[in-house]
Amino acid sequence: MYTLHYYPGNASLTPHILLEEIGAPYELALVDRQKNAQKSAEYLKLNPSGRIPVLIDGDLVLFETAAISLHLADRHPEAKLAPELGSAERAHFYKWLMYLTNTIQTEVLTFYYPERWSESEAGRAEINAHAGERLGQMFDLLENAFAEHGGDYFLGDRFSALDPYLLMVSRWSRKIARPAITRPRLGAFVERLSARPSVIRAFEAEGIAPPYC
Amino acid sequence: MYTLHYYPGNASLTPHILLEEIGAPYELALVDRQKNAQKSAEYLKLNPSGRIPVLIDGDLVLFETAAISLHLADRHPEAKLAPELGSAERAHFYKWLMYLTNTIQTEVLTFYYPERWSESEAGRAEINAHAGERLGQMFDLLENAFAEHGGDYFLGDRFSALDPYLLMVSRWSRKIARPAITRPRLGAFVERLSARPSVIRAFEAEGIAPPYC
Repeated sequence: MYTLHYYPGNASLTPHILLEEIGAPYELALVDRQKNAQKSAEYLKLNPSGRIPVLIDGDLVLFETAAISLHLADRHPEAKLAPELGSAERAHFYKWLMYLTNTIQTEVLTFYYPERWSESEAGRAEINAHAGERLGQMFDLLENAFAEHGGDYFLGDRFSALDPYLLMVSRWSRKIARPAITRPRLGAFVERLSARPSVIRAFEAEGIAPPYC
Repeated sequence: MYTLHYYPGNASLTPHILLEEIGAPYELALVDRQKNAQKSAEYLKLNPSGRIPVLIDGDLVLFETAAISLHLADRHPEAKLAPELGSAERAHFYKWLMYLTNTIQTEVLTFYYPERWSESEAGRAEINAHAGERLGQMFDLLENAFAEHGGDYFLGDRFSALDPYLLMVSRWSRKIARPAITRPRLGAFVERLSARPSVIRAFEAEGIAPPYC
């Protein structure tokens, strides 16, 4: 039995959808951000960086969304959430997972929380505007990657753990000047993913109604 | 034969050390940042994000440092650069690799390139100061993780691909107020890694003399 520490719409959404894809038994544990529970002494024991999600897998306490995604993919090969170890496809899977977590996801944080880098209103507005502009360029790069492979999913013809991750960051982009879905291929991708049963179940459990992005 | 597109001291350092650990034949290809070669049309074909490094492995063109690290670990299981697939150790390996790439490495970029988020001198100074402060806290978190497991390496008793990555970001921290090596365990770790033959060979080939951090 897995336990996923989550908050609606947060980065926990990706592992939540993956657990639905796998079909393994799991329970959700709400980290109440309204009460800043992600910074409580109890939660910091699970994740010293005070971020959501954390996955409990028996004795294993795991944080970092992309790490949880890789771990779930490795533990459930039958769910085919990642390509075969050592293959070129696996390498591309790693590449885009890294791009999503270290480039897009972190820029989203900069966009929403500019106060982490500036005390002044003007400074924050500037950071927010630049981050939004940069995110637009990053989604352009992803749109081009989609155009190159031409498939329905991030890796081409088959679903992988990258897809809920891309859906999640696309959702987060809805407040930037040029959201992900304003591009033809990313727009069609979001529509496709939004009709997937695992995705619908996860959003429903988190109390989020469509349209998701 | 691998080809690693690199620039001295850049993120290419981690795969460079890993190639030395593996002992597989490889060649280095300089991406001349002095001439902004990482943004040339030719290089953007290899990596549309215009960042260093890129690894060429036969037909495979791979970017993202952490992805290259994972790929090399998977391709050379005999080098034992990552724990066994599906194990709890492997999950912790993923976790710290993600933390290094999406939290520490990106904050380093914010520290060194504040102009990406601000036009004004004052705004840039503020971003730089906050990023430096945040990096200090991140290295405190890593110091605590080292204290908990008590081993010589990031994962405990055995070397892994995390170690060159941690050495690299520790090196990059030398301009912040509290560099990584001001902490006892991280300081001892950097000293240990700096004496490792693969590390010495990689720094030498990049024209960088000790002390490295």
